[in-house]
Amino acid sequence: MKDRQALPALLQGRTVIVGLGLMGASLAKGIKDLSAAAFVAGLDRKEQPIFRGLEEKVLDQGAVLSTQEDSVRSLIQEATLIILSMYPDGILDFVSRYRETFSEGTVLMDICGLKGFFLEEAQRILPEGVEFVGTHPMAGKEKSGYEYGNGEIFLGANFVITPTLHNRRETLDQVRAMARELGFGRIREVEPREHDEVIAYTSHMPHALAAALVNSWLGTEDVISFAGGSFRDVTRVADINSALWAQLFCYNSQALSGELRRFSEILDELAQMVEQKDRPQIEAFLTQAAERKERWNREGDRYDDGSRTR
Amino acid sequence: MKDRQALPALLQGRTVIVGLGLMGASLAKGIKDLSAAAFVAGLDRKEQPIFRGLEEKVLDQGAVLSTQEDSVRSLIQEATLIILSMYPDGILDFVSRYRETFSEGTVLMDICGLKGFFLEEAQRILPEGVEFVGTHPMAGKEKSGYEYGNGEIFLGANFVITPTLHNRRETLDQVRAMARELGFGRIREVEPREHDEVIAYTSHMPHALAAALVNSWLGTEDVISFAGGSFRDVTRVADINSALWAQLFCYNSQALSGELRRFSEILDELAQMVEQKDRPQIEAFLTQAAERKERWNREGDRYDDGSRTR
Repeated sequence: MKDRQALPALLQGRTVIVGLGLMGASLAKGIKDLSAAAFVAGLDRKEQPIFRGLEEKVLDQGAVLSTQEDSVRSLIQEATLIILSMYPDGILDFVSRYRETFSEGTVLMDICGLKGFFLEEAQRILPEGVEFVGTHPMAGKEKSGYEYGNGEIFLGANFVITPTLHNRRETLDQVRAMARELGFGRIREVEPREHDEVIAYTSHMPHALAAALVNSWLGTEDVISFAGGSFRDVTRVADINSALWAQLFCYNSQALSGELRRFSEILDELAQMVEQKDRPQIEAFLTQAAERKERWNREGDRYDDGSRTR
Repeated sequence: MKDRQALPALLQGRTVIVGLGLMGASLAKGIKDLSAAAFVAGLDRKEQPIFRGLEEKVLDQGAVLSTQEDSVRSLIQEATLIILSMYPDGILDFVSRYRETFSEGTVLMDICGLKGFFLEEAQRILPEGVEFVGTHPMAGKEKSGYEYGNGEIFLGANFVITPTLHNRRETLDQVRAMARELGFGRIREVEPREHDEVIAYTSHMPHALAAALVNSWLGTEDVISFAGGSFRDVTRVADINSALWAQLFCYNSQALSGELRRFSEILDELAQMVEQKDRPQIEAFLTQAAERKERWNREGDRYDDGSRTR
């Protein structure tokens, strides 16, 4: 077993994870996989995931938000790292509520899939000496909840850090080292607004398209008998956490609606080619996609081969 | 090793596979996996896959179309089952070219992903006593070519048979038994035109959406660093055989362009909800998709557990 001192700097103190859903539980489990000596406490609105975490020794301590406020505040106060693993709605609430409780030197890190709308605001609310780092671990599952949490979902996945002017280089490097240790693959730093624009394309669009394709079925035939791998893959993420994603879509309203409009224009162009049975144009359209996709696959593979740490 | 007599009736004679690409090779390999005693011959326009097939004992005999016409004709003449595993364009050409060569009692079976435009025509061209059965094995890979062929791609996959008035019940049952033996899961019979309409949704749409999403990227950022599982899944099939799929899209012009137009309307509605940050409506949209997808998953799972034959 690894000593606590062998852990990345950010995990050597007291880590508190707020929100023990899929991602929070996966982080807790991933950290404990690195070393059972790591200190990990959990906060949640529900008792159930905390009990499970304590039973499974994924958590060393835990407290229920609202009903066990004394324990909550003392865990927060003593924390060196607080990972906010909750819906976007909850992040600013949490930061405001406990702004007087955080100790100087504590690092807050969120893992929300959107950044632009709250990073500056969070830092503005926090007292000096409490740093807030925005991150976006690009891992997940169709399922939500503590029981589906698993540190292995991070292996080789992308990890994006969105620094602001309030962040210190040292802290960003520590976050990077922690992500590397947890098994993430490509780790990038990018400006928060730019992150949100790219994410509208790489994350929100696939979810929107999957949901729209599922919703667009009007027939009476039993779809499942006619579904091949392409249908299963494209619709996989339609089994979505709709409350969470409705929030994300709204917070990223401008970038996402732009992508949606542009996509539907491209689809209209394709529909016209198909209507006119314009085979050369359709083939050119598909060839462009195939070449680009193949290049992306190669870039992804090259990376995957070299950089996993476990 | 299984005796030839233990094979499904349709495979007990001389099987000739025309076109040794991914699907043709997978069928040849799948049949030989059932029994090395099965007779399988291969025809192709190129020498290479035939050499490979003979070397690997996936083929017992082979001949190159056009350049070895004597051998081609004798293999066709003696065949009891001919599996047409070529692009849609080639099927009617082949049937016309060899119409005098087929022997009475020979079954022709195509595996093309579209049916409506040629099944009646093929049967019209063929002499009496030569039956043509339309099938659509819903298995595949992003890659094409003999070397990627593998009988395991069929395991649990859907198999659709599209009978016409020219087909005999006995032949359809034999085709069904063969598909079952090759490991296919759900096997359905459906009228050819209905097949094409459903397929526009379950197969052509996922491919069109994947290609359009890849093509819609305008940014300069390195997409791969921001891609999670959702992006990889939704775009997987963008690495497409563009010549084949341009044919399929054109042959299914009416159904597919209708689906594309309808989908882009749904996307415009979603774009409007997102523009207006109408969270309840977005959530309802996503919930509808999630519920439907979960139901389909359950139906798929229930099936997968019970019906695989190997």
